[in-house]
Amino acid sequence: MKKAHIDIYIIPTNDFHLSEYVGDYFKCREYMSGFTGSAGVMTVTEHQAVLWTDGRYFLQAEQQLAGTGIELFRMGMDGVPHIDEYVEHYLKKGMTLGFDGRCMAASEGCGFAKLVESFGNTDSRRFIYQTDLVGKIWTGRPFISREKAFVLNMEYAGEGYESKLANVRKDMGEKRADICLLTALDEIAWLLNIRGNDVKCNPVLLSYLIISEEKVLLYCFEESIIEIRDYLEDLGVEIRDYFSVYDEIREFGQDRRVLTDTDKMNYTLYMSLVKSNAKILDYNTPVYFLKAVKNKTEVENERQAHVKDAIAYIRFLYWFKNHLGKQYMDELTVAERLLEERKKMEHFVEESFDSIVAYGDHGAIVHYSATEDSKYEIQPSSFVLIDTGAHYLEGTTDITRTLVCGTLTNQQKQHYTAVLRGNLNLGGTRFLYGVNGLNLDVLARQPLWELGLDYNHGTGHGVGYLLNVHEGPNAFRWRITEGKKRVPKLEEGMITSNEPGVYLKGEYGIRLENMVVCQRCEDFDSNPFGHFMEFETLTLVPFEREAIVAEALTGRERKLLNDYHARVYETVSPYLNLKEQEFLKSYTEPL
Amino acid sequence: MKKAHIDIYIIPTNDFHLSEYVGDYFKCREYMSGFTGSAGVMTVTEHQAVLWTDGRYFLQAEQQLAGTGIELFRMGMDGVPHIDEYVEHYLKKGMTLGFDGRCMAASEGCGFAKLVESFGNTDSRRFIYQTDLVGKIWTGRPFISREKAFVLNMEYAGEGYESKLANVRKDMGEKRADICLLTALDEIAWLLNIRGNDVKCNPVLLSYLIISEEKVLLYCFEESIIEIRDYLEDLGVEIRDYFSVYDEIREFGQDRRVLTDTDKMNYTLYMSLVKSNAKILDYNTPVYFLKAVKNKTEVENERQAHVKDAIAYIRFLYWFKNHLGKQYMDELTVAERLLEERKKMEHFVEESFDSIVAYGDHGAIVHYSATEDSKYEIQPSSFVLIDTGAHYLEGTTDITRTLVCGTLTNQQKQHYTAVLRGNLNLGGTRFLYGVNGLNLDVLARQPLWELGLDYNHGTGHGVGYLLNVHEGPNAFRWRITEGKKRVPKLEEGMITSNEPGVYLKGEYGIRLENMVVCQRCEDFDSNPFGHFMEFETLTLVPFEREAIVAEALTGRERKLLNDYHARVYETVSPYLNLKEQEFLKSYTEPL
Repeated sequence: MKKAHIDIYIIPTNDFHLSEYVGDYFKCREYMSGFTGSAGVMTVTEHQAVLWTDGRYFLQAEQQLAGTGIELFRMGMDGVPHIDEYVEHYLKKGMTLGFDGRCMAASEGCGFAKLVESFGNTDSRRFIYQTDLVGKIWTGRPFISREKAFVLNMEYAGEGYESKLANVRKDMGEKRADICLLTALDEIAWLLNIRGNDVKCNPVLLSYLIISEEKVLLYCFEESIIEIRDYLEDLGVEIRDYFSVYDEIREFGQDRRVLTDTDKMNYTLYMSLVKSNAKILDYNTPVYFLKAVKNKTEVENERQAHVKDAIAYIRFLYWFKNHLGKQYMDELTVAERLLEERKKMEHFVEESFDSIVAYGDHGAIVHYSATEDSKYEIQPSSFVLIDTGAHYLEGTTDITRTLVCGTLTNQQKQHYTAVLRGNLNLGGTRFLYGVNGLNLDVLARQPLWELGLDYNHGTGHGVGYLLNVHEGPNAFRWRITEGKKRVPKLEEGMITSNEPGVYLKGEYGIRLENMVVCQRCEDFDSNPFGHFMEFETLTLVPFEREAIVAEALTGRERKLLNDYHARVYETVSPYLNLKEQEFLKSYTEPL
Repeated sequence: MKKAHIDIYIIPTNDFHLSEYVGDYFKCREYMSGFTGSAGVMTVTEHQAVLWTDGRYFLQAEQQLAGTGIELFRMGMDGVPHIDEYVEHYLKKGMTLGFDGRCMAASEGCGFAKLVESFGNTDSRRFIYQTDLVGKIWTGRPFISREKAFVLNMEYAGEGYESKLANVRKDMGEKRADICLLTALDEIAWLLNIRGNDVKCNPVLLSYLIISEEKVLLYCFEESIIEIRDYLEDLGVEIRDYFSVYDEIREFGQDRRVLTDTDKMNYTLYMSLVKSNAKILDYNTPVYFLKAVKNKTEVENERQAHVKDAIAYIRFLYWFKNHLGKQYMDELTVAERLLEERKKMEHFVEESFDSIVAYGDHGAIVHYSATEDSKYEIQPSSFVLIDTGAHYLEGTTDITRTLVCGTLTNQQKQHYTAVLRGNLNLGGTRFLYGVNGLNLDVLARQPLWELGLDYNHGTGHGVGYLLNVHEGPNAFRWRITEGKKRVPKLEEGMITSNEPGVYLKGEYGIRLENMVVCQRCEDFDSNPFGHFMEFETLTLVPFEREAIVAEALTGRERKLLNDYHARVYETVSPYLNLKEQEFLKSYTEPL
C-alpha cells in the first residue's frame, strides 16, 4: 500500500462477473482474513484491518478472526458504521482509496468514485481502482480457473446459436444498438450453447462476449476452449484473450450505442466503456429474457431431469426413513447420501447449489449451511429441512422437502399443512395470460397469512437450464419492483420455483419447494374471456403424510395433493426396485 | 367557424374539470347532435359533421342521429379512422383547428397542438383553442350550475380544515413546491370540508383552489358560497371569481414551483400555467392520497351509512321478492322503488351514480343503462343485476346484488357461486402490511379462472366519503400500472369496492359488490412476522341462497358467508318490522 501510495484498500468478495459463487483464485478476502463465509468485505489502513459481514456469519467470523487482529464490524448492528461512512472518514483526511475494480460491482465503484469526487479529489492521485494488491503478495495463489468447456448439443439446447443470435440482433435493432456486450456468464453460455466449469455450481466459463452487426467476439482463456474451438470457429465466433476485453471495449465502444446491463458488470470494465465515449443503453440484455423462456426441447428435458432427480431422491428417502434412529446420521452425512444417489444418475453434472440440510432449529435459519462445527445429529423428533438440487445434461433441479424425523406437535402439523396448502394453491392455479408473479404470490402466502404467519423471502425464482439455479426475470413475490427488476408476465416455457415456508426462530423451519413450468391451459383453449395459462409441476417427490392435517385441506387442495402423489407414483415407480416401490406406494396413497 | 377562421372544430363531452358526470351547461355535443350518450366527440368541417362513440352506444347513436346528416364513426371498428387521424388529414391541407380548451383534457390538447406543430403551423393562425363556438349559437343554453354549497361539520368530516391544510403544506414542503393548484372538484371539497351540488351524483361545487405558503384562494361562483362565505372567511380562505383562475394562475405561477396533477386539468388552464413559466411538479396532489385514507370518524359514519342503506335495500328486497311475478315491474320501476326506499332514510343526499338495473341478457352489458326504449320487463326467470348507491351525510354506498327472478340453470348457479366465492375470499383475507390491490386481486378472480371465466374490469375502486363514488388511488386489479396510476399499498382506513362478476353475452350477467374498509388485524397485533391487515365489509345486504351451490364452497367460504349473514341479521333486523325481520331471518339462515 505504501509503494502504491494507497491509504485505504478495499477487498471485496466478487469474481470479475459478480457470480453467485467465486472460484479459489478470487478468494482474496478469505486469503487475507481467514474468514471463509460467502459474504464479507475487508478494508485495510495503516493502523487497522476491518471485516464487515452480516448476521448469518457473526459467530463464524468471530471464531475465524480470533487472534488475527482484524476487527469484526457486524453489519446492521447499532453503532456499526457502514463501509461508505468508514471510507468517507478517511477520505476527509485527504487519503487515497484503492481497490481492484474488476472485483467491484460497477454501481459500488461509482459510489466510491462519487465519494472521492465529493472531496474535490477528482484526479487519480486519490482514487486507484486498477490495482490488485492482494495478488502481489499472495504466494501460491491458485490459478484462475480455465476448465474445459463443452458444447451443449441440440438435443439438450433445443435451439441453435444462429437462431438465438438472430433474436438478439433483432432486439439490438429495435434499440438501435451497434453493439451488445454480455458480461453475465450464464447469458454467454446460453447464447453459444456451451457450458463450462469455472464457477462452482454454475456450469459456465469465464468469458465476455461482444456482438456487433457483423461480428461476435468471445473473450476467454485458450485452455477453456481447447475442445470447442472448431465448434466456435464454425459458428464464426472470433476468439480473443480473456483479459483483452478491457482494452478492446474502449475501441469497439468508441462513439457507438452499446446495449449492456451494467448491474452485471465490474467497475473496471464499466470505466473502460465510459472512457470509450460509448452511449450506454443500460437495460437487461436480450439474452436475459430469451433465456428465461425455455423451448419445447428444454421443457421436455427438464421433465426427464426431474424424473431422474426423483428416482435418486426417493431412494434417498427410503434409506433415510429406514435408518433414522437406527444409525448415526447428521446434517452433513445426510447431504452426502443424497448427493451419492444423484451421482448415480446418468448425465449428472454437479450440484446446482450448496446443499442445505438443516435439522430442528437450524431449519429456521434461512441461509443455514452445515459445517463440521455447526452440524446437528438427526434426532427422532421434529423436522429436517433439505434444500438441494442438481445439474444434469437434461436440466437443473431445485427441490426442498421438510422431512418428519419423529413425533410432531399439533402446531408443527398445522404449519406444515399451511405451507403445503400454499404450494398446492399456487402450483394448481389457472390464470389469464398477462398475469405475473406479483399477482399470484398471494396464493402461496394466504394459508399462512390466515394463521398470522409469513416467510421473509420470495415465493419463487426463475431456474436456468443447466445454468444458474437462480435466474431472472420471472419470479413469484409480492413486493413491487420497477425498472430492471420488474417482474414480467408469465410466458409459456418459463420455469420458476414454488417455495413457501415458515420459520420459527429457535424452533424449526418448514419449506416445500417444487419447480413449475408455465404452460397454456388446454382445457380452455378457445375461450371468449382470454387465453388461459397453468403450471405443470416438474418436481416428483412426495410430501409427508404424517405432517398433514387432512381436515385443514379444502376439497380442491386434497384433490391436487392426491393427483400429484398419483402422478409421482406412476412416473417414478417403474424405475424403482420392489421394496422402494412398496415404500413409495404407501407414501403416495390417497389422503 | 368562418368568422372565426376555423376549418375543423372539435366538440368534446367534458366539463371544465373532466368530471365523471357533466352538468346541462356543458352538454354542447348533445345540443349539437341530439345524441345523449355519456361518451362521444363531435367534429365539424365545412362539408361534414362526424360523431365518434364507443360500442356501448352504437345502437342509441344510430337512432338519435337518424336524419341529422351527422355521420356516426364507430370507434374501434375496422376502417374507422381515429379522431387524431381524421384531424391530421385536414391539417395536412393547411386548415385551422379549433376547440374550447376548457372542455379538453390537457393531454389531449397537447396531442392536437403537437399535430399542428408537426405541420409547421406553430402560430395561432392554425390552432385556436380559446373559442366556444357552440356557446355563441346555443340560444336558451342552461346557466352554468352554481348551487349552494354547505359545510360538512366535524361530526361528519372527522378532521378540520387546518389539520388537512397542514398536511398538504407538509407535502408541498417535501417537494419544494411554492404553490399547489387543485383542479379536481372532490379534492377541493374534501380539503375545505364543504360539499356542493353542481355535478350530478358528485356532491361538489365548481371551483379551483390555489394554495401557497401564505394564502389559500378559492375560485368559485358567488352564488355557490352564499351560505358558507362566513365559514370560508373564518378559515382565512380568499374568494375569487371562478373564471379568473385562468388569468391569475399566470401571475401566481410566474417562475414558481407549482405542484399540480395535469391529468385532472383542462388544456386552457394548463396553457395558462405553461405561459406563466412555472416549473410544473406534475404528481398526484397530496389531497389525492390524504383523502383516500378515511379517518376514524369517517369510517364509523360509513358503517352507519351502510346500516341505513341496508335497511332501505332489505325493504326493497322484501317488496321485490313478494311482488315478483304478481305485478308488472321493469328495469326502471325497480330502480325507482329502490331509490324511494333510500330517500326515506335520514340524511339521504342523492344517488351516488346512475342506477344500473339490468335484467337477463342486459346484465351482460357492463355499462348498461335502461331507458324507456331499452327497458325489459322483469320476468320470473334468470337474474336481474342491480348496481346502485347513495350519498348520505354519513358517507357513500355502492352495492351490487344479482337477484334471482325465477328458476335458474345449473350453470347460472355455478357461476353465481364462483362470483360469490371470489367476493368472500377477497373480503375475508388477512395480509401483511405493505401489500396492495395488485397482489390481492387474484383472490377474487381465482374461483372464476378455475372455470375458465373472467371479467373484463377491475375488482374494485376506491370510494369517496360523500364525494365521488369512483376515486383513487386504491384499487383491486391485476394489470400493473406505473407512474401516477400506480396502485398504492393498502392503508388502514382505505375504502374499496369488492366486485367480481361474470358476463355471458346474450345470456346474463352476475356481479356481487360489497364495500370493504382496510383495518389492522387485531388477532395478530404483535407478531414477529409483521403487521397484519384485514378488511371489514361495510355493506350489509344478504346474498341469494337459491343461487348458491353449497358443495362448491370450501369450509372457510361457508363460514365467511354464514358469519356475514349472521352479522347482517343482527345489525339490520332491529330496524325492520316483524314481517321484514322474518323475511331477513330466512334469507340469512346458516347454509
